[in-house]
Amino acid sequence: MVKQDRAIRTRNNILQAAAKIFEERGYQAATISEILTAAGVTKGALYFHFASKEQLALGVLEGQDQQFTIPDRVCKLQELADEVLLHAYRLQTDPMVRAGVRLTMDQHAEGLDRSGPFLRWSEVCRERLEKAQAQGELLPHVNPTVTADVLVGTFAGIQSMSQAVSDYQDLRTRASDLLRHLFPSIAVPSVLASLDITQARGESVHSEILTKLQAAAAAN
Amino acid sequence: MVKQDRAIRTRNNILQAAAKIFEERGYQAATISEILTAAGVTKGALYFHFASKEQLALGVLEGQDQQFTIPDRVCKLQELADEVLLHAYRLQTDPMVRAGVRLTMDQHAEGLDRSGPFLRWSEVCRERLEKAQAQGELLPHVNPTVTADVLVGTFAGIQSMSQAVSDYQDLRTRASDLLRHLFPSIAVPSVLASLDITQARGESVHSEILTKLQAAAAAN
Repeated sequence: MVKQDRAIRTRNNILQAAAKIFEERGYQAATISEILTAAGVTKGALYFHFASKEQLALGVLEGQDQQFTIPDRVCKLQELADEVLLHAYRLQTDPMVRAGVRLTMDQHAEGLDRSGPFLRWSEVCRERLEKAQAQGELLPHVNPTVTADVLVGTFAGIQSMSQAVSDYQDLRTRASDLLRHLFPSIAVPSVLASLDITQARGESVHSEILTKLQAAAAAN
Repeated sequence: MVKQDRAIRTRNNILQAAAKIFEERGYQAATISEILTAAGVTKGALYFHFASKEQLALGVLEGQDQQFTIPDRVCKLQELADEVLLHAYRLQTDPMVRAGVRLTMDQHAEGLDRSGPFLRWSEVCRERLEKAQAQGELLPHVNPTVTADVLVGTFAGIQSMSQAVSDYQDLRTRASDLLRHLFPSIAVPSVLASLDITQARGESVHSEILTKLQAAAAAN
């Protein structure tokens, strides 16, 4: 049990180091030996967990979406908004999330399948939109698959632009602006009027989840 | 005069070669000597036009938006839509446009100011939105500056996602989907009903402009 804990810690340690190096250097330029130095582990330990640079990058990409699950909401479009606004907040504040997004957007990451995160996020959004549709939250013409792709693609661009022009300083405002431009095309008016899609929402959802995680840890 | 023509041709030649190399190798990895080989010009000729790799990249970024000017439309939102849909079409078909976008989205292009194209496109969109507003095409709450930024950021993401999942094959569909999700939040209903934002629009605008350019060339 203790041995397993240590293995998990080592793995996380390596992923944090890989995230840092990928973010600083880009996928192509990053080397395993730089990641080894940053993680402070042996070559053997690294290769026990990850067989290649590609495996490390995929580990970072998967690390993006773990742990921070949005609590169930009565309104499914609010859940979707919370997902987007929380992600904007985490991009500003969490290096691991930032590294994952950079890898996804890195057009020179040859040999790395970058479509995974786009498709996974589309899937998550589509499921929420289908629930919203079943509850009558969406306008009649909305196709959840198409809208999910629009939401994921547009958010990816908003974050790139925010990174290029302000190093993520204005990302929360831009994420809120994005939702204010997309939701009126998909939501019925009474749902629109009930949503919180302000720029402060991401941080408050983040606190809410942290409090729940701490309460769960204390209960164990 | 003939001498000047030749200089312009050489400059274009170098930019086409630079676009190709930047697209294949990324900004960081590309070298001046690769660009020299691809362009088939002397070092002296290259340095006469461009002092550095950064100057070459800025030349490619500027090359993106030249020549293809959208004809004046009565409806300014149609002009804006035409800009977006034409750009999607050109991204699928023109290597120079593709290279410019790749440079803009290249997060590892150290020392290259990538905010330029975002800001220039925002400016172009803002101007059109202000004209649309003056003509009563926009809903009362719309802020042209905010909407211009949303439009530019979202399109950047749509193209990244299209590149990652389909190598631009589905870009025309995605661009049309994007406008169908944004315009209902900004346009008055009668304008919405008059717009052509279908995926075939980009190609037809492209033909329209080419025909005009050819007619102008023949008249000279």
